[in-house]
Amino acid sequence: MNLVIINGPNLNFLGIREPDIYGKETLEYLEQKIKTYAEDRGHTCAFFQSNTEGALIDRIQQAHSEQADGIILNPAAYTHYSYALHDAVKAVSVPTVEVHLSAIHAREAFRRESVVAPACIGQISGFGITGYTLAIHALEEYKLKGA
Amino acid sequence: MNLVIINGPNLNFLGIREPDIYGKETLEYLEQKIKTYAEDRGHTCAFFQSNTEGALIDRIQQAHSEQADGIILNPAAYTHYSYALHDAVKAVSVPTVEVHLSAIHAREAFRRESVVAPACIGQISGFGITGYTLAIHALEEYKLKGA
Amino acid sequence: MNLVIINGPNLNFLGIREPDIYGKETLEYLEQKIKTYAEDRGHTCAFFQSNTEGALIDRIQQAHSEQADGIILNPAAYTHYSYALHDAVKAVSVPTVEVHLSAIHAREAFRRESVVAPACIGQISGFGITGYTLAIHALEEYKLKGA
Amino acid sequence: MNLVIINGPNLNFLGIREPDIYGKETLEYLEQKIKTYAEDRGHTCAFFQSNTEGALIDRIQQAHSEQADGIILNPAAYTHYSYALHDAVKAVSVPTVEVHLSAIHAREAFRRESVVAPACIGQISGFGITGYTLAIHALEEYKLKGA
Amino acid sequence: MNLVIINGPNLNFLGIREPDIYGKETLEYLEQKIKTYAEDRGHTCAFFQSNTEGALIDRIQQAHSEQADGIILNPAAYTHYSYALHDAVKAVSVPTVEVHLSAIHAREAFRRESVVAPACIGQISGFGITGYTLAIHALEEYKLKGA
Amino acid sequence: MNLVIINGPNLNFLGIREPDIYGKETLEYLEQKIKTYAEDRGHTCAFFQSNTEGALIDRIQQAHSEQADGIILNPAAYTHYSYALHDAVKAVSVPTVEVHLSAIHAREAFRRESVVAPACIGQISGFGITGYTLAIHALEEYKLKGA
Amino acid sequence: MNLVIINGPNLNFLGIREPDIYGKETLEYLEQKIKTYAEDRGHTCAFFQSNTEGALIDRIQQAHSEQADGIILNPAAYTHYSYALHDAVKAVSVPTVEVHLSAIHAREAFRRESVVAPACIGQISGFGITGYTLAIHALEEYKLKGA
Amino acid sequence: MNLVIINGPNLNFLGIREPDIYGKETLEYLEQKIKTYAEDRGHTCAFFQSNTEGALIDRIQQAHSEQADGIILNPAAYTHYSYALHDAVKAVSVPTVEVHLSAIHAREAFRRESVVAPACIGQISGFGITGYTLAIHALEEYKLKGA
Amino acid sequence: MNLVIINGPNLNFLGIREPDIYGKETLEYLEQKIKTYAEDRGHTCAFFQSNTEGALIDRIQQAHSEQADGIILNPAAYTHYSYALHDAVKAVSVPTVEVHLSAIHAREAFRRESVVAPACIGQISGFGITGYTLAIHALEEYKLKGA
Amino acid sequence: MNLVIINGPNLNFLGIREPDIYGKETLEYLEQKIKTYAEDRGHTCAFFQSNTEGALIDRIQQAHSEQADGIILNPAAYTHYSYALHDAVKAVSVPTVEVHLSAIHAREAFRRESVVAPACIGQISGFGITGYTLAIHALEEYKLKGA
Amino acid sequence: MNLVIINGPNLNFLGIREPDIYGKETLEYLEQKIKTYAEDRGHTCAFFQSNTEGALIDRIQQAHSEQADGIILNPAAYTHYSYALHDAVKAVSVPTVEVHLSAIHAREAFRRESVVAPACIGQISGFGITGYTLAIHALEEYKLKGA
Amino acid sequence: MNLVIINGPNLNFLGIREPDIYGKETLEYLEQKIKTYAEDRGHTCAFFQSNTEGALIDRIQQAHSEQADGIILNPAAYTHYSYALHDAVKAVSVPTVEVHLSAIHAREAFRRESVVAPACIGQISGFGITGYTLAIHALEEYKLKGA
Repeated sequence: MNLVIINGPNLNFLGIREPDIYGKETLEYLEQKIKTYAEDRGHTCAFFQSNTEGALIDRIQQAHSEQADGIILNPAAYTHYSYALHDAVKAVSVPTVEVHLSAIHAREAFRRESVVAPACIGQISGFGITGYTLAIHALEEYKLKGA
Repeated sequence: MNLVIINGPNLNFLGIREPDIYGKETLEYLEQKIKTYAEDRGHTCAFFQSNTEGALIDRIQQAHSEQADGIILNPAAYTHYSYALHDAVKAVSVPTVEVHLSAIHAREAFRRESVVAPACIGQISGFGITGYTLAIHALEEYKLKGA
Repeated sequence: MNLVIINGPNLNFLGIREPDIYGKETLEYLEQKIKTYAEDRGHTCAFFQSNTEGALIDRIQQAHSEQADGIILNPAAYTHYSYALHDAVKAVSVPTVEVHLSAIHAREAFRRESVVAPACIGQISGFGITGYTLAIHALEEYKLKGA
Repeated sequence: MNLVIINGPNLNFLGIREPDIYGKETLEYLEQKIKTYAEDRGHTCAFFQSNTEGALIDRIQQAHSEQADGIILNPAAYTHYSYALHDAVKAVSVPTVEVHLSAIHAREAFRRESVVAPACIGQISGFGITGYTLAIHALEEYKLKGA
Repeated sequence: MNLVIINGPNLNFLGIREPDIYGKETLEYLEQKIKTYAEDRGHTCAFFQSNTEGALIDRIQQAHSEQADGIILNPAAYTHYSYALHDAVKAVSVPTVEVHLSAIHAREAFRRESVVAPACIGQISGFGITGYTLAIHALEEYKLKGA
Repeated sequence: MNLVIINGPNLNFLGIREPDIYGKETLEYLEQKIKTYAEDRGHTCAFFQSNTEGALIDRIQQAHSEQADGIILNPAAYTHYSYALHDAVKAVSVPTVEVHLSAIHAREAFRRESVVAPACIGQISGFGITGYTLAIHALEEYKLKGA
Repeated sequence: MNLVIINGPNLNFLGIREPDIYGKETLEYLEQKIKTYAEDRGHTCAFFQSNTEGALIDRIQQAHSEQADGIILNPAAYTHYSYALHDAVKAVSVPTVEVHLSAIHAREAFRRESVVAPACIGQISGFGITGYTLAIHALEEYKLKGA
Repeated sequence: MNLVIINGPNLNFLGIREPDIYGKETLEYLEQKIKTYAEDRGHTCAFFQSNTEGALIDRIQQAHSEQADGIILNPAAYTHYSYALHDAVKAVSVPTVEVHLSAIHAREAFRRESVVAPACIGQISGFGITGYTLAIHALEEYKLKGA
Repeated sequence: MNLVIINGPNLNFLGIREPDIYGKETLEYLEQKIKTYAEDRGHTCAFFQSNTEGALIDRIQQAHSEQADGIILNPAAYTHYSYALHDAVKAVSVPTVEVHLSAIHAREAFRRESVVAPACIGQISGFGITGYTLAIHALEEYKLKGA
Repeated sequence: MNLVIINGPNLNFLGIREPDIYGKETLEYLEQKIKTYAEDRGHTCAFFQSNTEGALIDRIQQAHSEQADGIILNPAAYTHYSYALHDAVKAVSVPTVEVHLSAIHAREAFRRESVVAPACIGQISGFGITGYTLAIHALEEYKLKGA
Repeated sequence: MNLVIINGPNLNFLGIREPDIYGKETLEYLEQKIKTYAEDRGHTCAFFQSNTEGALIDRIQQAHSEQADGIILNPAAYTHYSYALHDAVKAVSVPTVEVHLSAIHAREAFRRESVVAPACIGQISGFGITGYTLAIHALEEYKLKGA
Repeated sequence: MNLVIINGPNLNFLGIREPDIYGKETLEYLEQKIKTYAEDRGHTCAFFQSNTEGALIDRIQQAHSEQADGIILNPAAYTHYSYALHDAVKAVSVPTVEVHLSAIHAREAFRRESVVAPACIGQISGFGITGYTLAIHALEEYKLKGA
């Protein structure tokens, strides 16, 4: 599978930003770990991070053009209000998994709702970096079933 | 009249994105059709599409500097939360018509409210591409009345 | 096309009622102007105004029996609570366009929601009398497409 | 028992209006079927349908003057906002049963609340025409108990 | 002053309807009492009652045409949802006082809000028939001040 | 028809619990009366009452295994929050009628919403024990129509 | 009748405070005018104004001890949140009329609800100083009826 | 690891219940598949299903007494209102993962909120049976990190 | 007095569950302490704990059959949604006191509302085990007054 | 212990005010009864009642200066909106118990929320005067535990 | 400038009350520091603190009579519900700045709304004592501009 | 101090955009005035304006890398929905002051809530350009205190 891993606003500050919530590892470390894991299972992956909502939408659309097999998307704060990201995921024919590092359901009220999730095939939250590798498994299974 | 037609996020995926809601024609087709229609009536028109909220605001402000006679704006998903677009339309002295391809009042709850519309001279929704040509008529009439 | 133009409560007081919001022209003037415009384009039109919700429903149903080609409906204050008008529009097989003289999205909170709109093919608001002529165009296009 | 069966807005379009929700039978068929059923059980019944809220209230008040033994009322769309019908039912001393053809609790949110029901002795919804004959049984029992 | 006293739905059932809330006097008694009172003070008055929202609007508009000096309006249940009555009062240039027999602020939640009151010069509730004679005084004072 | 009549929490205290709301008859009396009525019409019926949400779900599922022809369900207080009962009714292929002894729409706010009703073919409330015999009629008709 | 006229916070600034809403007359003028009017009709009246919620409650309780025949209460801003004033009015056996100078139903949202009104026999709003004299009439009538 | 897999109400009807949402496999199939998968990775697992909220709580508490290494919990409909399950998960010292077969964020409004999730280490929804095997991975990683 | 002390879900995990909120003592300790205290004052008491809503209702009903003199009920998490427990308390003629170990009004939003309390003679929260002995006093006083 | 018993607005009207809710005993009786009870247990107590929010705050602060061992506070109507009392209780280091004579959870909606309670160590409602003596017990226990 | 610095409820407990939120300095220290600062810039200032809403209103009105040049107002807990203070600020012609020691927008939900702020020329929150000196600057600038 | 002054969407249209709300000075004028003021006090400052949410986040992150001593942030319309800006401010270790030119608490409802403010050390609104210089003072004091 060709996978695209897209991280939203402030995730480039991983390791710097509130480490007791988001962990001490940096985005580079996270991307490297996912890369190794994915390649071991025979997948290729492309990474993208941006603080700009529109740039994230552009990248999702590009995944469509590249005929990617799956998107793993952590919309970060945009999760809670970006109907534009929701529409982008709906507009492309690439199965998308929403991932969150922290357990968003146990945090501030505004973090409990995802307006993006209804456009995704599923959501994984609360397992830190592991969430991304679980998403790879989920996409493998999704492909196998031909759903 | 010098018109600026501005389309928001994911409208570059027209024809690809959920065709039973948004139709099968592409954005290029839509822009060409509007152009022909407008020029037949003696207007010039400039087109712009972006997935980025800030780029849309920049373009609205540029229309002010260009002394455009009217803006036709389809804010797509930003319709529902972009108070920044609302402020942009209010900040410029160019009359603006909000257009939606689909009948937003008959769709999901979040699509029924427009935070941009209160800054526009009017809103047209539900007539597909026709909505844009109706907007041209509306701006013609608006100019005639000197309102 | 045989068109039926239906105006709701207090629109018979156009020109008298709050002229800075609704304009100075009377209902007669408005109906005459629409008539001329429609006939120039080869349509016939019938007009109806009533302050009574039930009479408006009766007229919508009659349009069905007359096999009208389109309804242009300005439900005025009933826009905001008449589920009965919503059901009437849904019950008949005549495409209906909702029109408002003023930009309802920019007025008091109660005027921003339309319970009738979800049953219509589209909504036009904010352009004064022009809204009715735009609706004629919209119905022409709707018929052309065979939708 | 002298019964009055009152049907609200758009029920004269039964069989025409969204037949997958409301069934294919017409109002005439429905009234005839109820009539036969009621007369077989020794009751007389009067029928009334109107699209006008005030006319429905007038008819409820008339039932009081006629000393009817029961009212079967399908307020259709008025169910959801007509406090005036609620007050009418409360104002008369005739036991009233609210009936709905469709299962209103399983439809759009606005159809789940009845502002009329609190004034009725009971509510029956979801059984099509059968709902009216059930209401006759209910009124028979109600009379027997002298409640 | 030429006064028009308009009573809304179910008020023709005064004396019959829930007498512990609305009192034992009938509408005829109420109208007679107001008439005597008004004529003693040199006013003429016309009375109107209807269960139909549209008929009440028609009567309000007629008061405008008759150049009435004041309207005393008890919208009964329409108080709580008739934006059309609100618009009617706003559309005419006749000062209008809203009157309620019972203390609506002390009853069910839905009776505490008036959508008509914002269009009136004032509201009087809770004093039974006396409310109407107070309204006559209020209109006298209003005229004196030339407001 | 093989019918299953299921009564929810506290209905075993019928006759004891607030008799002015729920009547003076006991559950045994109610069940006996329904039994006689049903057998007279050629049906068999099984009865079940439990205070435990899970036991009610078990019994609904058992009705599926027994290939029952209909369920009459009074979920009592569970009506208002048991999404698990809602899912149980949806999971089985047995048509289910929701019955309430009292007119729930005229009681405390929390009793006006049913989360179970959207899964049922209809709802009957307010007629005391009669509600159950009405439900038998409703199921007979439902079977006749083959719906 | 012995009447007590109680005015709440900021009413001592009448004539100074937003004169286009509250008028140009001072509190002294208002009290004098009421006094003359009341004495002409054979009543005595005591006046009280305070900015302190507790002092207003004390005065209401004192009216009880003095066996006053009626209270005319303008709670000003306390209208909208003082459940303590509500309880005070309820605690005493003196009939109380709530008066407002301006039409509170036509102003900001927070001014539309009165938490005090449910404890009063009635409410009068929107007629300026006249509201107080209307309240005297209302109390006269109230006494006559022995209610 | 010793794992306990707990399934809530109506999950024993898997394969029977709405197969287009929940899939065609039965609970037995699901449990067998998880068992094989878990044992291949060197874990033991115990299974439990009940329709009764209290029985689910009992089983969660038993997992604590058995010193289980992890709980995989699909609370089904209880997800949305069982604060008692929330408290049970919080009360035990066994890390718990909430799993849902369907993408609950894309379904009816009431299914979008989980009151149990805030007590869990994470949530996985939308991947069918795969969700359970992902949960096993998540618990493995959780144990490794010693969190 | 014969007292029944009923504890709801997860209270059997007292001392294990979040000890900084609920204290370190176990349920056995709590029951023993209450027993001693009650017997010293000449009362007998029966204890019951269950995680199952229905079992708690069964026990409340049994208290009725046993002609208990009082119930002390800690519904734990069921406090916030069990209308069935509310109905059970209302159905029996045994005075019931609701007790909470922690100060529920100072905790998460969902813990601030009790749907059970309106059926009880009073509520005590925040004093740990002491709350139960206070409840015994309260029931003694209640009996004395013959209320 | 040195105790301060503080009663809020309208409690000086105990015995006069709605006796079926608040009982027939006067405040003097209540204070005397508490005094005797407290002194029997070796405590001293000071009493205070005021209708003024600020005076109640002053007294709470004074209790701090006097190094009182406990406050028993019945904020009456201020319970529901006085964040200032909440802050006062939080500002002092004296443990405070909130007491209500009536069962506030079973009364009007606005009486069900306490904004003061989150600052108190506990709340007792519904037992009439007994509530105050229970509060003394609660404070004794609180002191013993050294919490 | 003649300045009046008004502090609301519990601010006399500064230094005592929750020092990690409000700081360790006392009100005297705060007032002294402001005084020095103001006098250095050539202003005079008067200080006032009260726990009583009405006393704060009295002081605001007095500032009007004294022709003060500016008010610096910290309404403390009254910020969130005192419409009476809002009206007082609006009633006087003295420009008023609202100040809060803590960052109210980052605290409990009820502290995020100010009902007083809409009547002030501006609001400063979160800088501790510095907020008051900033307010002096703001008033200087305000005077300079002659706004 | 090294300061970064960041202005959000449409602030580059200062002087053009609604001058009665935002003033007649341009952004250049504002930046120049702040620069002079800051340099006079020995600070350096960098300015940034963008209409793009992501670009504002980038700039905030850059301030972290530059080890800026303070950020002055006017998020304009993003104030009301940009949780991404909130997270950005939280992610960096630079103290940030939120500034608004107009008194946002006195404007439309949507402008009264700031989702960014909870991440800032304080908020200043309503003083026009002066707000920025007040923010410089606030940051100076903040640094002095070492908080």
